Parts: sequence; structure tokens; C-alpha cells
Amino acid sequence: MNNSAAVKSSEVKSWDRQVDVIVVGCGAAGVSAAIEARTAGAEVLALEAAGGPGGTSAMSGGLIYLGGGTDLQTACGFEDSPEEMARFLIAACGPHVDEEKVRLYCEGSVAHYDWLVECGVPFKPAFWQAPTAEPWTDDGLMFSGGEDAAPYDAVAVPVPRGHCPASPTASRHGSAGGLLLMDVLSRRAAELGVEQSNNTRVRHLVIDDRGTVVGVVARRFGEDRYLAARRGVVLAAGGFIYNEHMLADHAPALVGTDKLGVEENDGSVLRAAMVAGAATVRMNAGEAAFSLPPALVKPGLLVNSAAQRFINEDSYLGRVGQHGLFRQDGRVWLIFDERIFDSAEEFRGPVQPDHVAETVEELAAETGLPPDALAETVAAYNRAAEAGHDELYGKAVRWLGPLRPPFAAIDARRRFRTFTLGGLKTTVDGEVLDHHDVPVPGLYAAGRITSGIPATGYVSGASLGDCTFFGRRAGAAAAHARPQIQSAEESH
Amino acid sequence: MNNSAAVKSSEVKSWDRQVDVIVVGCGAAGVSAAIEARTAGAEVLALEAAGGPGGTSAMSGGLIYLGGGTDLQTACGFEDSPEEMARFLIAACGPHVDEEKVRLYCEGSVAHYDWLVECGVPFKPAFWQAPTAEPWTDDGLMFSGGEDAAPYDAVAVPVPRGHCPASPTASRHGSAGGLLLMDVLSRRAAELGVEQSNNTRVRHLVIDDRGTVVGVVARRFGEDRYLAARRGVVLAAGGFIYNEHMLADHAPALVGTDKLGVEENDGSVLRAAMVAGAATVRMNAGEAAFSLPPALVKPGLLVNSAAQRFINEDSYLGRVGQHGLFRQDGRVWLIFDERIFDSAEEFRGPVQPDHVAETVEELAAETGLPPDALAETVAAYNRAAEAGHDELYGKAVRWLGPLRPPFAAIDARRRFRTFTLGGLKTTVDGEVLDHHDVPVPGLYAAGRITSGIPATGYVSGASLGDCTFFGRRAGAAAAHARPQIQSAEESH
Repeated sequence: MNNSAAVKSSEVKSWDRQVDVIVVGCGAAGVSAAIEARTAGAEVLALEAAGGPGGTSAMSGGLIYLGGGTDLQTACGFEDSPEEMARFLIAACGPHVDEEKVRLYCEGSVAHYDWLVECGVPFKPAFWQAPTAEPWTDDGLMFSGGEDAAPYDAVAVPVPRGHCPASPTASRHGSAGGLLLMDVLSRRAAELGVEQSNNTRVRHLVIDDRGTVVGVVARRFGEDRYLAARRGVVLAAGGFIYNEHMLADHAPALVGTDKLGVEENDGSVLRAAMVAGAATVRMNAGEAAFSLPPALVKPGLLVNSAAQRFINEDSYLGRVGQHGLFRQDGRVWLIFDERIFDSAEEFRGPVQPDHVAETVEELAAETGLPPDALAETVAAYNRAAEAGHDELYGKAVRWLGPLRPPFAAIDARRRFRTFTLGGLKTTVDGEVLDHHDVPVPGLYAAGRITSGIPATGYVSGASLGDCTFFGRRAGAAAAHARPQIQSAEESH
Repeated sequence: MNNSAAVKSSEVKSWDRQVDVIVVGCGAAGVSAAIEARTAGAEVLALEAAGGPGGTSAMSGGLIYLGGGTDLQTACGFEDSPEEMARFLIAACGPHVDEEKVRLYCEGSVAHYDWLVECGVPFKPAFWQAPTAEPWTDDGLMFSGGEDAAPYDAVAVPVPRGHCPASPTASRHGSAGGLLLMDVLSRRAAELGVEQSNNTRVRHLVIDDRGTVVGVVARRFGEDRYLAARRGVVLAAGGFIYNEHMLADHAPALVGTDKLGVEENDGSVLRAAMVAGAATVRMNAGEAAFSLPPALVKPGLLVNSAAQRFINEDSYLGRVGQHGLFRQDGRVWLIFDERIFDSAEEFRGPVQPDHVAETVEELAAETGLPPDALAETVAAYNRAAEAGHDELYGKAVRWLGPLRPPFAAIDARRRFRTFTLGGLKTTVDGEVLDHHDVPVPGLYAAGRITSGIPATGYVSGASLGDCTFFGRRAGAAAAHARPQIQSAEESH
């Protein structure tokens, strides 16, 4: 079989299995698609390359970006509207976010929250306000995208929208909400009768002579299986952060970075879709989570290799990471002082300074930063702190404080954890588009194999939110599609 | 005919024309491919969407990046080597430049210069050293990529490699070298017997049932013509800067920018190749030429919207533009003083300040830049100038001088002129690769429809150099390919 082409259905001697809908990948997007397709009455086969479901979603903190007035928001005393939510997401996840997707996502957010609850995902109505990346308890709601920091606090009314499943094992090591979320959703899928096949790696799409995707060729324990989908194939296999070759071709800034994901995020299914004529968008886009504790970053001073500030330090860590990696080539240092280090004790975790110094000059010598520039930057920052006004980047007053000796610094050049945001171009119903924006018949996709709500920017919870919401829509669309596998059936 | 697919040769009722090699696009890459294919004995038909040849190349200054010891370099008293040239290009055109292409390009550069001279391109052995983007006379050689500025002066021995055809109409309005170059090469192609068809827009590739590209469907004055290529089709239709839809999908930072190119750079041929299964690389990459006179920029002070410097001002203008547009969102101001303005008189052209001010405070008020930060930046810059050492960005001492009142500023937010650098993935012989890095049989490409020497960075002359050098290689490869149009011929 030619490795570089889609397989023609006329070449398939016999199908090992025929179902209505095949879902490829059992992370949040795939499982949501499978649940919704099954709920719509379809016979669903879900294929997972790893030994069990969960994917990258199960590794995550489990934050889901929801709003517009969910029960959880209301219980925590926050008012929200789909319009405010959309304003924020368009600003924070752009530029060039798909506004139709955002609109549907925000309008449907309350109902989507209710659906998650119905599936059995537990949320505790408590607001977590410590400066951490995820709740350290089972608290359910937090600011997760810099809504309350510049520049977004001027774009929309700041409201917390990070909804985190209440995991009994939440701790300072993380919320473990992703594992819980995937546990609940996977169990739900199984209860509904979704059939799952683990250790099953999709290698090719099968296409009939009219260009319709009618199935897949998947390898399981060394053997190729020919699996037909009467109504549609939903691709939900994740991004391509674990494929350095594809990164070099499409997202060179991510080459050699530390990855956030499972090794199955190797782009092989994405590529199979591209081979079948699917178009991609913004394949260079990526998230670069800055992996230092917000409790130290927010009150600290971030500088680039010219010892200049480049962002308000109270920004969402994903924004710090994107600016730091893409605009500063990852050459970033965090400066703080003893007071900050001490007062962050409760929430800073085990991180320690790389350098300590009694003077700014000594700090420059330790870090290798240009000494005059560093002295000027610290002096200017201290003046801004004393004046209570950050002229440059609008850092909130509550995080502004002059730096005093002894100083400390963390060399943050390896503190970026990345995943890809570019991928297949899809409609709001998950139809995969070709290079002329025409749907490839029979082919659907959702999650990080697509370009979605987190189009170029990012906020925590946007990916799980996008995966589950548009995963459901893709699964439903495939289940409701007219059966189109005649040619495959006729030929056998 | 389905607009969203390649045309199958079995659907072609009859061919209007059959030749050995079809070249699509008659800019520098296409004409070079046509000349070389014809020289190799092939019957060549060159198709041009516009009313005449030249494309974007004819609009350009005509600089061609050549080196390694060309006769012109030697005549001007410069020594160079392919190794030094490669070191520079890998640094300046990267990251992630195709090193095999760079190596061949640098090793073949002296012979390529000789070929241009043989074709009739005139070069005057004189070194142009004024701070302009192109020679204003018919002088033939200049620094054109920041070889003599930080950071590249530390990477390779600084040698000028911008080779500019000696145009009798060169003036302060430009070198007009591109028009001359395309005139000479187009005439050469015609003399050799290349047939050219203008006003002929390629709409589809024609593919046989083995996936080989065997021709094109091209529209001329409202009529589709079916044109067969026995040995190969060479795509040389330029980039996609005039397609805002494709920019939004692939290179969002370029949306809405001022374009550098001809309107035929609409990506339609690129997309036809993508539809036929061709892979692309780094579609987000772009050049953003900073269109202010180097005579003002180099001695001036460039700041971002936080009134911070972000680059050494003596950088090549293409680098200034890329950093300014992609890393500073195009929010850039050029600050200078009366002394700089006066001493740049000879080479600054008609540009005038947008703002003048007696004090830095007034300048901040005029420009809207943050006043404290601007004052600090000017003071720090002046200290660096007096010390003769730019700690931040390594600007050369000869361009450093303290700024004194009266001050002036140019709002440079619309001073970026862009074109795309991403495109088809090709081998060094112009073979177009599919998503598995396997050549699409019968399909070749060169120039800005491909990703080439200017992979992500840019230097003046890199595009014309890449177009002509790899255009020749693609044309030769197509001409020497085994005829593979049997299936098309058999069917008629």
C-alpha cells in the first residue's frame, strides 16, 4: 500500500467492521463526539492509539472555559453574559479567531455546562482565588485567562470562567481535574454503548471514487484492519507537538521546546487528512505555557535578553509564554526579591532562584543581562510601583511593588511548555474543509487536530472547552449524515 | 468542472496543445526555468497570467544575492567564499532554512553570476556604499542584508553580495534593475525559442490515474485551454500576498498590510498544487520591508509602543520590518533629530517628519508614546552613544550619536511592505513534495510559490537569487524527466 496516498475504497478487499460513525482518538474531543453520535442513535466505534482513553486531556488540569451565566458562576456570585464572554475570547484567542465558532460557543456555553453535569462531571460551587495555574483544592471556578489583567480588563467585564471538575485528589501538585473529566466522560460513553478499541492506530483514510471518506485503515498489534463508517469519520487525534519534522515545516518556533501532551500527538492522523485533501489553517500557531508559579511571576519583573520588560507580569501565564517564546525567542528572566519570594511561600511550590544578589549590578553579572539596562529597568519599575502606575504595560496596582535587595532571578529560558493550535479547517459542525472551503464528504474533526476557539492566542480551558463543545457538534453531525457508503458496500 | 479538485486526464476530451515542459508564470523563476529547459532541448510553453512577462521581479530593484567570489565582487576588491556566504545566509534567512539548498546555492553562485552575464545581464564593477535600499546609480555591488551589522557581523566576515543589474535609468527613485533583468531574461527566452502565452491563467492541474501531473487547464480570454506537458509542469506563479483569505488562514500577521508584488500573486496556482496533493511549508512566513530611508533609520532611534528599543537601527531594513511587524505588531516609531535629518539630506529622499518637538516630553505628547519611558530610552541611548557602546543591540559606533533637540518622529505604523515567503515544499531540483515528502510526479516549482532560500528571514536579493537559481534547476529537471504522458496520449 502506498504510504503517501489515501486508500481507495475499490482497493479494499473486505471490511473487517462496519459502523455508522468512527471516531479517531479518545481524548476530550473524541469522547464527546462519540457520546453525542451514540446519543443520536448511531453505532459508534472509537479508536484510540494509546492503551486507554484520555489522551492529552487526561493529563491536563481539567479547566473548561465556560460562561455566559453557568450555574457554577451564579453560585459563586458572578454575573456573565454570552456577549461579554465573546468579547473576551475574540480578543484573547485571536487575532483571527473564527467568530462564528466563538458566537455559538458562548451562546451554547450554559447548556454545555449543564450537559457536562448531566454526564456526571462534578463541579463544586466555590471560587478559587489564589494565584495558581489550577485550583489546588476541589474548588470549581477561577480566573483562567487574564480576564482581570491588562489589556483584557478593558475589553470585557472581568469574570472568572475557568470551570474545574472537583477532583478529590486535587493538591498543590495540580487539580487532577483532567483525569476526572476523562474518567467520567469515558465511562459515560461506555454506558451508552460506544465501542472502544485501544492500541488502534489509524494509518489511512479510505475514500471512494467520489471523494467521500468511507472508512479508515487502522493498525492494531501489527495487523491492518479495514473499518467502514457508513455516516462519517470524526478525527479527534490531537495536535502534532510530538512530530519535530512537522514542527520544522509548519511551526518552527516550537522545535526543540518542552512538550505538553501525549506522544500520540504525532500529527499522523492530521497528515492522513491532509493527504486526503483537507485544508489546514495557521499551522504555525501554538501555545507556550510559562511554567513558573503565578505567585512569583505576577509580583515579579519579567525581562528579555536586553533586560527590558515586554509584558505586564500579571498576565495569564499562557500569554506570558506566547510573548516570551515567539517574540523574545524564549530568552526570558524572572526577577524578584526576598519579600516577593517570602510572601509567595504558600503558593510558589518548590521552585528556587537560579541566582541571588545583593545589588542589581551583581544580579546582572550573575544572569549575564546587560547591567546598565537592567539597572534602568529595575529603577523604572520601582518608580512605577511607587507611583502606582505602570505606564508601559498596565500591570494592576495590586501586583506592583518596588524591588529591594536582596534580589533573585530565575533563568526562564526553558520554562515554556508547548502544544500546537493549528490544524484542520472545519465548519462549526466539524465538517472538514478542502482547499476551496468545500466540505470533504464523510469527514469531520474536532479538538486540537483542528484550528478552533484558541486560534492563535490561548486561555486556560479554551482547548477542553473547544474539544468538548465542537466534539459534540461533530459527533452529532456525523450521526445525522445520510449514509454514504453504498459504493463500499456494493463492492463486497 | 468541479472547482475544488484537480482535473483527471481521463476527463480531458482533447488537448489543445502538447509540449515537453509547461512553465506557469513568467517572473524571474519562470523565465529562468524556461531558458534552462529550452537550453536542454525541451519544447517549452510559458504561461503568464498578466499581459506580459516580468511579474513581481520586474517591479523590484533587481538585487540578486550572489557571492563566493564572483567577478563583480573581485573587481570591487572583495574576497568571499561559499562557506562564509552560507554561514551568513543560514543565520539571516533562518531559522530553519533548507541547508542543502543554501549549500548548493552558495557553491553554485559564481557560476550562476556568470550565467546571468552570459544571458546578457549587465553588471557595472562599482561598489555602492551610500545608505540606501538600492543603488541610485548603475553601480553593481552593495551590502544588502545587514552583513556588516549586528548580529550577523559576528557570524561571518562581512562582504557585500547584493548584485544589481546596471540600469541606465537608475536614480534616486530606484535602481530599475528588476525591469532590466526581466527584459534581458525574457528576450533571451524568446531568442531560444520559448513560446510564451500571456493573459493565460492556470486554473487546474491535470493528473493521470497514477497521480502524475500531465498538464494544465488554463483560461485565456474566457476560454479554457487544455495544455499537455510530456515531461513536466513548472509552477513559478509567485506568492499569495494578494489573497487576503489565504493570508487569514495561513499568515494572519500579513492581513491588511501594504503589499509588495503584482496582483497576480493571488495564490491560485499555489492552491491548485495544494489541491493536487502538494505539501507546503511555513505558510506564515513573510517579509515586511521597512519602507523608510536607511539614511534616516540607521542613525535614528526605533521604538515600540512602550517607547523601548527593539533592534539595532543599523540592521537591514527587511529585518527591521520583520521584527517591527511580527514582534511589535507594527507599532513602531522612528525618532531622530535635526542633525540626523540634515546630514541624511542627500539620501533620505522626500520623507518628512510626522512630529517635531523641542523636548522629549513634547515628543511623547505628539506621538502618544509613554513619556517617562521615552525619556528614559532617549537618555539611555544618548549615554550609549556617548560611551560608543550599544549594550542592548550592538549598533555599530559609526551610526551612534546622541539625540539633541529639536527632535522629530515618524509614525512608522504603515511603513511595512509585505510579501509571502511560505509555499510549496520542493527538493533542490524543484520537485514538488507531497505530505509524505515524496515528489508529485511531473510537478516542479520555483520562486515564491515555494519556500526557498529566504525561509523565514530575508535579505535583499535572496528572492531573485533563489528564483533564478532554483528556477534554472527546476527547468532543467523537468526537461530531463522521462516523458510520462502516455496515458494522456493513449486516451486520444
